Amino acid sequence: MDKKLKIGIYGGSGYGGSELLRILLFHPNAEIAFVTANEQAGKPVSEVHKNLAGLTNLNFCSATEQVNQLSDLDCVFLALPHGQAMEVVPSLPSHVKAIDLSGDFRLRDQVIFEKHYKQPHTAMHFQSDFVYGLTETNREGIRNARLIANPGCFATATLLGLAPLVVNGLLTGRVIVDAKTGSSGSGAKAAANTHHPQRMDSFYAYKPFTHQHVPEIEQELYRVGDWTSELVFMTHSLPVSRGIFASIYAETKNELSESDVQKLFADYYGDSFFVRLVKGSPDINWVKTTNFCDLGFAIRGKQVVIFSALDNLVKGAAGQAVQNMNLMFGFEEKTGLMLVGTNP
Amino acid sequence: MDKKLKIGIYGGSGYGGSELLRILLFHPNAEIAFVTANEQAGKPVSEVHKNLAGLTNLNFCSATEQVNQLSDLDCVFLALPHGQAMEVVPSLPSHVKAIDLSGDFRLRDQVIFEKHYKQPHTAMHFQSDFVYGLTETNREGIRNARLIANPGCFATATLLGLAPLVVNGLLTGRVIVDAKTGSSGSGAKAAANTHHPQRMDSFYAYKPFTHQHVPEIEQELYRVGDWTSELVFMTHSLPVSRGIFASIYAETKNELSESDVQKLFADYYGDSFFVRLVKGSPDINWVKTTNFCDLGFAIRGKQVVIFSALDNLVKGAAGQAVQNMNLMFGFEEKTGLMLVGTNP
Amino acid sequence: MDKKLKIGIYGGSGYGGSELLRILLFHPNAEIAFVTANEQAGKPVSEVHKNLAGLTNLNFCSATEQVNQLSDLDCVFLALPHGQAMEVVPSLPSHVKAIDLSGDFRLRDQVIFEKHYKQPHTAMHFQSDFVYGLTETNREGIRNARLIANPGCFATATLLGLAPLVVNGLLTGRVIVDAKTGSSGSGAKAAANTHHPQRMDSFYAYKPFTHQHVPEIEQELYRVGDWTSELVFMTHSLPVSRGIFASIYAETKNELSESDVQKLFADYYGDSFFVRLVKGSPDINWVKTTNFCDLGFAIRGKQVVIFSALDNLVKGAAGQAVQNMNLMFGFEEKTGLMLVGTNP
Amino acid sequence: MDKKLKIGIYGGSGYGGSELLRILLFHPNAEIAFVTANEQAGKPVSEVHKNLAGLTNLNFCSATEQVNQLSDLDCVFLALPHGQAMEVVPSLPSHVKAIDLSGDFRLRDQVIFEKHYKQPHTAMHFQSDFVYGLTETNREGIRNARLIANPGCFATATLLGLAPLVVNGLLTGRVIVDAKTGSSGSGAKAAANTHHPQRMDSFYAYKPFTHQHVPEIEQELYRVGDWTSELVFMTHSLPVSRGIFASIYAETKNELSESDVQKLFADYYGDSFFVRLVKGSPDINWVKTTNFCDLGFAIRGKQVVIFSALDNLVKGAAGQAVQNMNLMFGFEEKTGLMLVGTNP
Repeated sequence: MDKKLKIGIYGGSGYGGSELLRILLFHPNAEIAFVTANEQAGKPVSEVHKNLAGLTNLNFCSATEQVNQLSDLDCVFLALPHGQAMEVVPSLPSHVKAIDLSGDFRLRDQVIFEKHYKQPHTAMHFQSDFVYGLTETNREGIRNARLIANPGCFATATLLGLAPLVVNGLLTGRVIVDAKTGSSGSGAKAAANTHHPQRMDSFYAYKPFTHQHVPEIEQELYRVGDWTSELVFMTHSLPVSRGIFASIYAETKNELSESDVQKLFADYYGDSFFVRLVKGSPDINWVKTTNFCDLGFAIRGKQVVIFSALDNLVKGAAGQAVQNMNLMFGFEEKTGLMLVGTNP
Repeated sequence: MDKKLKIGIYGGSGYGGSELLRILLFHPNAEIAFVTANEQAGKPVSEVHKNLAGLTNLNFCSATEQVNQLSDLDCVFLALPHGQAMEVVPSLPSHVKAIDLSGDFRLRDQVIFEKHYKQPHTAMHFQSDFVYGLTETNREGIRNARLIANPGCFATATLLGLAPLVVNGLLTGRVIVDAKTGSSGSGAKAAANTHHPQRMDSFYAYKPFTHQHVPEIEQELYRVGDWTSELVFMTHSLPVSRGIFASIYAETKNELSESDVQKLFADYYGDSFFVRLVKGSPDINWVKTTNFCDLGFAIRGKQVVIFSALDNLVKGAAGQAVQNMNLMFGFEEKTGLMLVGTNP
Repeated sequence: MDKKLKIGIYGGSGYGGSELLRILLFHPNAEIAFVTANEQAGKPVSEVHKNLAGLTNLNFCSATEQVNQLSDLDCVFLALPHGQAMEVVPSLPSHVKAIDLSGDFRLRDQVIFEKHYKQPHTAMHFQSDFVYGLTETNREGIRNARLIANPGCFATATLLGLAPLVVNGLLTGRVIVDAKTGSSGSGAKAAANTHHPQRMDSFYAYKPFTHQHVPEIEQELYRVGDWTSELVFMTHSLPVSRGIFASIYAETKNELSESDVQKLFADYYGDSFFVRLVKGSPDINWVKTTNFCDLGFAIRGKQVVIFSALDNLVKGAAGQAVQNMNLMFGFEEKTGLMLVGTNP
Repeated sequence: MDKKLKIGIYGGSGYGGSELLRILLFHPNAEIAFVTANEQAGKPVSEVHKNLAGLTNLNFCSATEQVNQLSDLDCVFLALPHGQAMEVVPSLPSHVKAIDLSGDFRLRDQVIFEKHYKQPHTAMHFQSDFVYGLTETNREGIRNARLIANPGCFATATLLGLAPLVVNGLLTGRVIVDAKTGSSGSGAKAAANTHHPQRMDSFYAYKPFTHQHVPEIEQELYRVGDWTSELVFMTHSLPVSRGIFASIYAETKNELSESDVQKLFADYYGDSFFVRLVKGSPDINWVKTTNFCDLGFAIRGKQVVIFSALDNLVKGAAGQAVQNMNLMFGFEEKTGLMLVGTNP
């Protein structure tokens, strides 16, 4: 019989938590011990996530209620707003593994963290124990990790598009990433920028040059290869619910043929079930609700553009988090993640 | 030269106010003296309604600033949340005409008002001076009115669909109105039910049987005809920004032919430029941003269904308000209201 | 080890076929022997349904290629345009079970069929062997059937809403169904009414009184209960991709309390996992991509309105078809159908 | 009294034609003599463009019917598919001015034309009489022109963003334009890529590096300034009906301050009513249905990104065409173009 991990989820009422629940409730090796949501404590999970009606009897609890249960757990997921995981992590028993979906432990440099997240870091001494959880570039590190900093959604889309080129040291000059996200990237709380009457007809840029995913992208590019380019990173808002699409403009040192680039990506992602290489452009429609990242590209002389599409809440958050859990506990990487997309 | 009315707008930061500004800034007989928005006082109108950038230098002001200016005005529009017009109306000089877009003065019966709006009415003695501003059923009344209670958006769609049948005493049995509204009907403030990630894929019913527009519909039907039917009224939320579509199911005392019904509507709306009769079903797409209400119908035996489509913010609010202003001041009814729709 | 049925799918390139593939490729008791799509014969399934890239190596074939393989099959699904299943069914070996997603074999009366589908019926003698596949009202019949006429999407939404009331003989007077469908209901081929620039802002009625699902609804209501009401059925187009929402207006012979109605539905659907009873109104957002039908209701005196929401391509087509297959072959009804919805 | 030009419109059933009609029917100096639509000849305009019901009694005619009327005209608009204007232009009387919305006469170089439009050019000797109709960069040329090649929608968005920088010779290195368009850019005919069930959740790139607007952009940049950069141009599809958003990434020779760039744009567009400079990013929501192009920018060191937003059918097509007509006939540039946007 399958071993069942005992899982705690912190921050279950947001969209990250929603997707963790959708996946983990049906994961053959997981059993959810508790799911916190302080404002909704006591309420059935299926009252907040009505998609789960008939599928679970779990209630939300408050984080403080669970303090005594922690030693029974195998793994916790932290799907909290930025700044809160750093309060939970120090209190975890040392045998409990943790996967943090927030930005709290992604950055090695405290100054850079505080500049981008605009808050002090109170648990920086834990950062060096955290492994950056981009599964496809860091599988071995993740397998052996106790603590995972799960990548940001934009960072995942960008890094998966760039890694094969950077690892092989093929780029020169600046790299421009024109990234677009669906409205669920803003979270589950209603706000002016996700007000439907306006958002449904909108497209605009935001946080020019300064998105907080920039430093984690650069940090990971330095780690995997010889990154010397300047990164120009621009985020935009799309009028869809789910999906990230990144158009990545780079220049190669030498001219590459289409089949060169094709082979490069095929080699790099040969063992990576969740990266699919497509002809021409991917489309967020084909990855929505799935853990896939679809990659395509086009070239002209030394100009190469890579197109990267994924679901911000799955491969960009909860799906990748579970993919990392699978690695950390020795399960097959795909376990519980055969989330099949739909047409249409 | 054209006479220019001096106009005050109360509540200019919401969607009703936004549409009043879009229309009145270009109305040949109007000059906006002030537009209030207490939370935005001092800010340029075009910072809030960015569609108006380059088109106006007006700033929002607070309502209290304008107290001394009131006697210079010809007309005020009240586009405030329910419950606030009743505070402004008593303070208006008696020569100033007023058009209230809220529900404050639509209902003759205080008990019914307080039941539906869940607040006490503090200026009920003004109610009898208010004329219900459904232009097409009440033109003469409006021409002579000083105070107008502008109809609700659902009420406008429903009444325009039913009036020709009720006026002619043709109905029997209960009437069922299945009404659907776009998200702008919830106003300009972000809220859970207009959160884009969810709303874009949603359709649901709300306030079953109890929408506050029910009593004003019934009150007006009693006024225009011999209304003895039971009204079953159901409101639903559509994932579009603008538009109301009402499917109105009724039964006629005798069988009518298609051409009978066609003639009935053509006669009743012969002088009504803003009601267009269409074959089959109208579509909210063809009326969006315009002051038109498109009506179609289908019959089978004694069953008749009328389809009514309009833009909730124009014919259902600001457009009809200006249409009423035109009548009250002796202008051609269409003045300033040639808001042409688009394809697509 | 699980028994694997050998399955043939006719008509795999449309949306019904797309959803059958999404479900059956991962059904533990199914193995797809072939999937036809005459215009796409020879092409990989994943080139047409790009959501399935990486998940299947199947190619489409033409129907004629498969004639000799038929005797190896256990079950075929017919997801063809109306009028084509009647050509395939007579050629099936008698041990092969079949589930037809089209309207070809739903209606007992040839005259009514030909009136609504506007074509002659060439295999009417098979009709009496077909069992109407609305799982929740007809489980025993389905278990013993060789041939299933899978219900229409509107019919499923309407019948699930009405059945508990009709079975118990509680209704009087006419019943009005105001039904709305997403654009995928029009199929996978582009057409004027699904042209995005216009459809995204549209809502309109179509086929007033005459939708071809009306006779199958009435036929099934006669079968399950003492149906004597007049049915007024109206279909509308919603600007979403997936989902049907039906607002069903009925009158009860006697006044029922909320808890009466609640109990009635709870009793009738006690064993039906895929019908969920919700407070107030359901929302198509919570059932999209799933096999659930969510039902809610409201009452006022003898007026009752039932709200029914489902995904037209799953519970309204492919999901229910597989649910029926499960029954016909003695599998647990839910097998392969734990398609979990998402928030958002 | 106002002079009324006699206008002929070729190609009135598409979206370009639709918008020309919306504008010219209400233009104080225009009178539409005829509007062609060969497939719809004889049909009322308002049956095809139902937004215009009640606003015009025009019928479509076929192009051949109008041959004898041409000498009465002052101006024709050609809103035909690419390749058809070159057949009409040679037959126009020499006193008739013409504005071509297609790509037929935009490119000076026949080889480049035939490469990008994949058809032979049969009237190339007329090309040198055509003036490129980007109003803001070419006002004087347009005033004196008889024949106008109205710019492509992507070209308009891109050129308005780049012109102030290129005219002043400030750029170095390659320029990357990441452009996105709404679905109406694909025209009024339904097609697979505008099929609503899929398009509403889609975002993808198309025609990488090779869009036919690239050569007209480069040609105009050479004309207005000292353009030596490489242009990397990428087009993407947005799930909205209307709007183009271009993110333009460039490098300046020297570092510029924010106020430098602000001043540069303010100076260049000081007399251009239809270009609005906004803080931060524009949003297609604020320009939809209007003739405005909203421009914003951000800088970091020598990196500058310009954001350009417009309505592809108005400033990107019909609106700019009328703007050009106004100049050509000596009317105020804004005449008939006060198309006010809406919030929401």
